[in-house]
Amino acid sequence: MPSEFGNKLRVSIFGQSHGEAIGCVVNGFPAGEEIDFDALDRFLGRRRGGKNAHSTARAEADKPEFLSGVMDGKTCAFPLCAIIKNADTRSKDYSALKHTPRPGHADLAAHFKWGDNADMRGGGHFSGRLTAPICIAGGIAKQILERKGVFVGAHVSEIAGIKDESFPVFPDKAMLDEIADKKIPVISDQAGEEMLKKIEEARKNLDSVGGIVECVITGLPEGLGDPMFDGVENRLAQAIFGIPAVKGVEFGAGFGAAKLFGSENNDQMYFDENGRILSKTNHAGGILGGITTGMPVTLRAAFKPTPSISKMQNTVNLETRENTQIEITGRHDPCVVIRAVPVVEAVCALVILDMLIS
Amino acid sequence: MPSEFGNKLRVSIFGQSHGEAIGCVVNGFPAGEEIDFDALDRFLGRRRGGKNAHSTARAEADKPEFLSGVMDGKTCAFPLCAIIKNADTRSKDYSALKHTPRPGHADLAAHFKWGDNADMRGGGHFSGRLTAPICIAGGIAKQILERKGVFVGAHVSEIAGIKDESFPVFPDKAMLDEIADKKIPVISDQAGEEMLKKIEEARKNLDSVGGIVECVITGLPEGLGDPMFDGVENRLAQAIFGIPAVKGVEFGAGFGAAKLFGSENNDQMYFDENGRILSKTNHAGGILGGITTGMPVTLRAAFKPTPSISKMQNTVNLETRENTQIEITGRHDPCVVIRAVPVVEAVCALVILDMLIS
Amino acid sequence: MPSEFGNKLRVSIFGQSHGEAIGCVVNGFPAGEEIDFDALDRFLGRRRGGKNAHSTARAEADKPEFLSGVMDGKTCAFPLCAIIKNADTRSKDYSALKHTPRPGHADLAAHFKWGDNADMRGGGHFSGRLTAPICIAGGIAKQILERKGVFVGAHVSEIAGIKDESFPVFPDKAMLDEIADKKIPVISDQAGEEMLKKIEEARKNLDSVGGIVECVITGLPEGLGDPMFDGVENRLAQAIFGIPAVKGVEFGAGFGAAKLFGSENNDQMYFDENGRILSKTNHAGGILGGITTGMPVTLRAAFKPTPSISKMQNTVNLETRENTQIEITGRHDPCVVIRAVPVVEAVCALVILDMLIS
Amino acid sequence: MPSEFGNKLRVSIFGQSHGEAIGCVVNGFPAGEEIDFDALDRFLGRRRGGKNAHSTARAEADKPEFLSGVMDGKTCAFPLCAIIKNADTRSKDYSALKHTPRPGHADLAAHFKWGDNADMRGGGHFSGRLTAPICIAGGIAKQILERKGVFVGAHVSEIAGIKDESFPVFPDKAMLDEIADKKIPVISDQAGEEMLKKIEEARKNLDSVGGIVECVITGLPEGLGDPMFDGVENRLAQAIFGIPAVKGVEFGAGFGAAKLFGSENNDQMYFDENGRILSKTNHAGGILGGITTGMPVTLRAAFKPTPSISKMQNTVNLETRENTQIEITGRHDPCVVIRAVPVVEAVCALVILDMLIS
Repeated sequence: MPSEFGNKLRVSIFGQSHGEAIGCVVNGFPAGEEIDFDALDRFLGRRRGGKNAHSTARAEADKPEFLSGVMDGKTCAFPLCAIIKNADTRSKDYSALKHTPRPGHADLAAHFKWGDNADMRGGGHFSGRLTAPICIAGGIAKQILERKGVFVGAHVSEIAGIKDESFPVFPDKAMLDEIADKKIPVISDQAGEEMLKKIEEARKNLDSVGGIVECVITGLPEGLGDPMFDGVENRLAQAIFGIPAVKGVEFGAGFGAAKLFGSENNDQMYFDENGRILSKTNHAGGILGGITTGMPVTLRAAFKPTPSISKMQNTVNLETRENTQIEITGRHDPCVVIRAVPVVEAVCALVILDMLIS
Repeated sequence: MPSEFGNKLRVSIFGQSHGEAIGCVVNGFPAGEEIDFDALDRFLGRRRGGKNAHSTARAEADKPEFLSGVMDGKTCAFPLCAIIKNADTRSKDYSALKHTPRPGHADLAAHFKWGDNADMRGGGHFSGRLTAPICIAGGIAKQILERKGVFVGAHVSEIAGIKDESFPVFPDKAMLDEIADKKIPVISDQAGEEMLKKIEEARKNLDSVGGIVECVITGLPEGLGDPMFDGVENRLAQAIFGIPAVKGVEFGAGFGAAKLFGSENNDQMYFDENGRILSKTNHAGGILGGITTGMPVTLRAAFKPTPSISKMQNTVNLETRENTQIEITGRHDPCVVIRAVPVVEAVCALVILDMLIS
Repeated sequence: MPSEFGNKLRVSIFGQSHGEAIGCVVNGFPAGEEIDFDALDRFLGRRRGGKNAHSTARAEADKPEFLSGVMDGKTCAFPLCAIIKNADTRSKDYSALKHTPRPGHADLAAHFKWGDNADMRGGGHFSGRLTAPICIAGGIAKQILERKGVFVGAHVSEIAGIKDESFPVFPDKAMLDEIADKKIPVISDQAGEEMLKKIEEARKNLDSVGGIVECVITGLPEGLGDPMFDGVENRLAQAIFGIPAVKGVEFGAGFGAAKLFGSENNDQMYFDENGRILSKTNHAGGILGGITTGMPVTLRAAFKPTPSISKMQNTVNLETRENTQIEITGRHDPCVVIRAVPVVEAVCALVILDMLIS
Repeated sequence: MPSEFGNKLRVSIFGQSHGEAIGCVVNGFPAGEEIDFDALDRFLGRRRGGKNAHSTARAEADKPEFLSGVMDGKTCAFPLCAIIKNADTRSKDYSALKHTPRPGHADLAAHFKWGDNADMRGGGHFSGRLTAPICIAGGIAKQILERKGVFVGAHVSEIAGIKDESFPVFPDKAMLDEIADKKIPVISDQAGEEMLKKIEEARKNLDSVGGIVECVITGLPEGLGDPMFDGVENRLAQAIFGIPAVKGVEFGAGFGAAKLFGSENNDQMYFDENGRILSKTNHAGGILGGITTGMPVTLRAAFKPTPSISKMQNTVNLETRENTQIEITGRHDPCVVIRAVPVVEAVCALVILDMLIS
């Protein structure tokens, strides 16, 4: 189902970059859950651009209006609809692109699929802007999860080859909160500074860079997930690939596990002093057979570099059927990875809450 | 939905390692499609163990019986059910494990989820043996796809750090067929030999190794897939994570894209002599915005090393609630990656056929 | 999935009677379909109250705003969101009802399910007002279907025991249009007049009446629908029971078929002059084995009488836990059947369009 | 999804009348539930033909083999597959029918949908025989429900115009059991005798009769079901229309409610001596707003007369494209309603168990 995911908690995302509004409908939030709108605003602020040199200059208020599903500040048992009006859109910036698909963008695919019928102004429904309603839904999900003792946190694991430290095996809430409050959500601030330099360098070169977001989910009950095609990995991966620019998802040791021996990769178990079954490593990322073991769930999502770059690139003219070149102007973020951190958290929170209430 | 996937083509897998039979129900195969049973047997043979030193000694005939969905050798419009009877099961090998979950296995997760109620003999429904019915379903899907000019092929991309060559940007059917016929499905036979050595080495050390399978799908129409959460990547990833031991999935340049500049990662387009829009690189893996561009779809799946190893490992005794150790005996494949190659093809074929007929 | 239905064409309805707005998100409309907004307004007008003595006095403008999915008056490939702001809500009318569930309403069920957490003001998400966004979605679906030669029409088949004529075996578009334009959508205007009298009588008695809507879908291709649980009947019934107050759905001869002999009920086939296979009767309602035969699809939906009546009724006080009585005041429609006619058409159009594009 | 239904409890039915076997896969039965195989056999016996003059002479052993999902007589957490081998099939009886679709059968629809590719021997996948695996799945579901205090029972409410009494408002388990044990599952044995006479009469006239099955579900918790399109009615109706020959489904007063005044139809509530909220009538069939109220859920399903009759009927020859006539020979049940009673129970049990565990 395009633009939708979830089983008992269903999330539907709508809107085009240059349409009237973007928004979400979430069906299945538990009833009576208080929404901390200030906390939600802060969460949305982490995704929002315009603050720093390294993100797009488009000033988005991103102030959500709640049309349904909320009464007296609480979820009220029925579908929640929240919208963000589109104000500051400059369609003329993009009109020149109509017949010259931008390399690395959905333009060409959209052309093949819908001809001229799709509203691709500003990227249309594929725009990174559509991650705002994902964050509204996910921000609320995070609040509900926290009340259940489940915490979702993420950091920039890598940008342009610069690596942050990894999460420890058992990250605590304080650590996740501290990272979330940083301008650059990293563990090592030094790594963060170097990343910013790389981003600025790319920007000056009219280029862009990619990176990796690492996410952890703590406090999950054991036994969550179902065998084969409905495990925690299947569900999370399916949803995370819905975030624009994601090209890879791995859990625990992930691709690195392919290089380990079984004796290295297996997480050997022990009873801790409280009788909980734990392991000192977490190569499984908290998931075995698709099902949670009680260890933190960990995953990493790879983001390709922003395809919108100002460098001259080869492309085709769909009208004249000739090869041509393109220089993309307009406001573009040379690195979406920093802003993607809360988006990954949002998607994970929604999937996990769905699994918890199913 | 556990043990099931697909929309219009729905695949349901059933069976436990030591139950009566394992099998699949496939709902939605186009009617009137001839099944080449010999070709299907050869395909199943690629997955089957017992031939080589590097795979499990359990002799599985894996001869499928078709209970429904077939008439006069053709699909007959109705759900296809095929089963494989379980003959050679030695439950006693596993009975000792009942209270000592094997590190890296689903045992612990199953214990948390179902207590003693799950049939975990021989790994139960989590056993790699359950990939046989996936291959029955997927083998038929491959045959149907071939008639549509769509080819699915895979090779061992890496085992224990030894890397095979990558697929060229436009692999042809002959190449895919040639790889499939090899004892070790690789492009570079020398890499294959080295992989076998590493596997043998691990076996001697009572250990195991992991690896990566690369898969390509050629001949796809443009415009397949839907935005956000129902794109080709979402669907393939969701299903591929259903293959036991998969811990990561990436498309095109995948995690490597995170290290590239936008100007490097973007696939610049041109019209070829036949007026087709192509690109010289395929970092997007044939997918932009979740939708096919007409370039081959490429992906890689990371497999962790077989968790069943004969080395002594720490674990817990769920009955005595004490820490203990375990030495896993019985027949175990020190590397599942080679046998996983047709399984990845099977899953990809099923997902792609589903998308083509939806 | 609550408040949602459909496979490739997915309809999601949100909003509470006294919330900010009600609306729909429709995912999967074919791209490039022109929306005739005037025709849509006329269609919505058929559902709207306030015109006649027999419907509620609440003045609803019901003017939809389109937030997404539309560009230059056409569907634009992406999810369509339309909303109707709630203006004229008088919550105080309903506040007294909080602890005294109204007989025949969802109040009691909602109390059991959500305690005080559900927004049940004015019926909340269960209000008949929520059929307005269904009609927005369905009205557009009807327009798209008409371009494919598929026509959906309905009439009041019965109110308070007064029966209209039945549709002929092959109703034409002109007939359906003529009925739709009537103040009371019936075939026999005399029956319509008698129905109005019965409604007025009920209103004077502080009571209400129920009835039956008959719907026909013509121009359908043969072979639509899938066996067993995914046939045309399964899909239509599942969705039609989503319309408030529906308590029964039957196809073709329906419950009447239970009284016929096989020799009477079977529709005997013949080739007509154009080589089409037809039958003189249509007891099957155009569906055999869940699959269309090319004959018109016919169905009937039974609506219970409006539960909101001003007569004194017995109920319980959930706070004091004592038996009590209730007199429901406020504006209530003594018969929803007339306004339900376009709603039935809307739901059928959405289901059928979904099946046609799947 | 054809031949499948359910959310957390998923039922998939496979097989053709003249194929190797028919069967079911059920995914999601709670683990550790004991299966009383004798009780299951008795339940299947209620559906089985061959015992009486009024049902088909085909001797079906209908003995299910369990291929998966069961260990030590209990559900074992994984998909349950049960099959019934097809032994006594006489394909030649049906070969003559290949080009002359039988009136009232799926033959014509199948021809339009699949041409000659569908296995329609003996009705193929549309055969009433496919209700046997539904009863295996549903019989187990009934056993699980009984342990939760939920009872599902049904009776023949009407055959050929002869009506049985209705269930009382609160039928108890003893009554349901007593009815189930009868040769003709009716409340009034006299009505049952008259029904049998009517069936025998029809048989002698080479004709058939239809009827109605009434089903009740007691012991349900309040608050089951979700608003609009995912209520108890939507789910039950969707599944019940999957039973061959069903043409109508109604809940509570159903179509009769259309003739009542609101003051008659509304179920007025009171606290009983135990503080439970009940009503003296149950026109709502235990469901308001799609959600259970704690009153018994009641429904009725209308079955058309068996389409296979030996009387001469008009039909078409699809090969010669000429009008022709047909006399259907072979073994046919002149009334499926009696055997349909446990099938309705089975489907209801599966839907309700699904909703209870979701």
